[in-house]
Amino acid sequence: MSPQSKLLAGVELGGTKCVCILGTGPDDVRAVERLPTAEREATLRQVEAVLERWRAQFGAPRALGIASFGPVDLKPGSPTWGFITSTSKLGWRDTDVAQRLGRRLGVPVGLDTDVNGAALAEGRWGAARGLDDYAYVTVGTGIGVGSIVRGRSIFGMNHTELGHIRVARVTGDTFAGVCPYHGDCIEGLASGPAIEARAGKPAAQLPPDHPAWDFVVHGLAQLMHTMVLTTAPTRIFLGGGVMSAQSHLFERIQQELKRSLNSYVFAPELDQGLAQFIVPPGLGTMSGPLGALALAADADNHAAKPLASFANASR
Amino acid sequence: MSPQSKLLAGVELGGTKCVCILGTGPDDVRAVERLPTAEREATLRQVEAVLERWRAQFGAPRALGIASFGPVDLKPGSPTWGFITSTSKLGWRDTDVAQRLGRRLGVPVGLDTDVNGAALAEGRWGAARGLDDYAYVTVGTGIGVGSIVRGRSIFGMNHTELGHIRVARVTGDTFAGVCPYHGDCIEGLASGPAIEARAGKPAAQLPPDHPAWDFVVHGLAQLMHTMVLTTAPTRIFLGGGVMSAQSHLFERIQQELKRSLNSYVFAPELDQGLAQFIVPPGLGTMSGPLGALALAADADNHAAKPLASFANASR
Repeated sequence: MSPQSKLLAGVELGGTKCVCILGTGPDDVRAVERLPTAEREATLRQVEAVLERWRAQFGAPRALGIASFGPVDLKPGSPTWGFITSTSKLGWRDTDVAQRLGRRLGVPVGLDTDVNGAALAEGRWGAARGLDDYAYVTVGTGIGVGSIVRGRSIFGMNHTELGHIRVARVTGDTFAGVCPYHGDCIEGLASGPAIEARAGKPAAQLPPDHPAWDFVVHGLAQLMHTMVLTTAPTRIFLGGGVMSAQSHLFERIQQELKRSLNSYVFAPELDQGLAQFIVPPGLGTMSGPLGALALAADADNHAAKPLASFANASR
Repeated sequence: MSPQSKLLAGVELGGTKCVCILGTGPDDVRAVERLPTAEREATLRQVEAVLERWRAQFGAPRALGIASFGPVDLKPGSPTWGFITSTSKLGWRDTDVAQRLGRRLGVPVGLDTDVNGAALAEGRWGAARGLDDYAYVTVGTGIGVGSIVRGRSIFGMNHTELGHIRVARVTGDTFAGVCPYHGDCIEGLASGPAIEARAGKPAAQLPPDHPAWDFVVHGLAQLMHTMVLTTAPTRIFLGGGVMSAQSHLFERIQQELKRSLNSYVFAPELDQGLAQFIVPPGLGTMSGPLGALALAADADNHAAKPLASFANASR
């Protein structure tokens, strides 16, 4: 296949695994490879090897999309654009990902956080089709939120990081939380590791009536109270390992959110539409890798216009 | 003057006063009138009388901008578009403001919250010129936040309302808060009435070393911690009656924010640029009325395009 291939390459760089993907969308995935996210140099070399093997087999992709765990420097023109910065993941601080992979492949690079990528993929191909303002939340080894405003992820000072907001606590709860940066931010209170630290066993093993869920429901409802009032999503897609194993949480979070907002916000989404307001995502475990493809498609579209440059392809 | 006048009319509808304004911008204000925000029917009649007097004197304005306290229904096509909805202001629930005033003047209407209007005015004429992503915060009889993302206010399910997020509390603090909807949301904890309820006298009379400020600083820093992680403003403009009377609060809030974020976010704004990150607004007491003019200008521009309609002029 020639370099004029329509194919796009994507890398979802997650905290525990990397998924490399080649294709144009969910109905046209040519190849997928999963690797553990281990020591950074070894991991990035493995990713490069996959991408180069695909290039030899299928031709050069039109663009590369990277959906990465964060925080990552997304500022156009920054010397460390595309670097993972102050992550709590050991050994990955100040690691160049996007400049390196872009140089290696020699194609335009689209870059965003893993959750922003997943949110965009849900909008293009999944459960958020037709929506302009919505959010994707994952509750698993961490808590991440991708907020889409008018069809695009938010980018100002840098990308958003709602998993690390501090929320109102249940009165009298003194659990210190597990976030190495913030202790009892929402990730520190309600992620999988936080639930395990509080309950003494993994979240997947807890029955629906375990008291640890009360704190998780309260914390996630507070996160969503904040989301409703700060970015006003018309729907929230709530996924990740903790949620998919504990479907009883959806209705409890909906009810706790309603109680917390106390009829202050005028919106049918919070009234008769509540059961449709907080729902599972549509692409399942493929939302992350497809997010990387969506970012590649955007980078390809940007590169087709004059004045687009490598460093701002993802804006 | 003919109906082809360039003049725009604006109404800032605040919780304690209404400001009517006629002009095209800060260097061309033809008339300003202030009225107390009293019983709704009497107040709206007074506003109508001012606007009609100006129309007789100056000709019909090209458009009307309304920057209103909220919550207000901004949803295009909603039968109650332009109504104030679940406000805590007595006697103003479910009050048609924008449809009524628009019909009366027979011109396009631009509508947003008072703080979104003020934020847009700061971007067009004030201290936020040249910025695309920033926020305007007012701390006075209430707490309001206008968040601008890519040059526009956020609108999804409805407008945003950050004054009513619940924040992490100072450990052991049991003050119930004064918000009739949420008790200890940030407005309930750190607005002027909250400070007075806690300290026993008005905020303006408290010395800088009064212990009540510790709670205000903590609460406002938590609000800004959340803002940094949810809409990522490149600068925060912090004004309102409480802030303008207590300038010592700026540095304290900056330091508490830095402590709370704990170097997690990669951005020069939070490091060497911290003193320039949280600053007073540039238009002073005129940011609200000029916000109404900015909304009128936007409505006029929308109306000049085909397919624009009354109900979505403010989007």
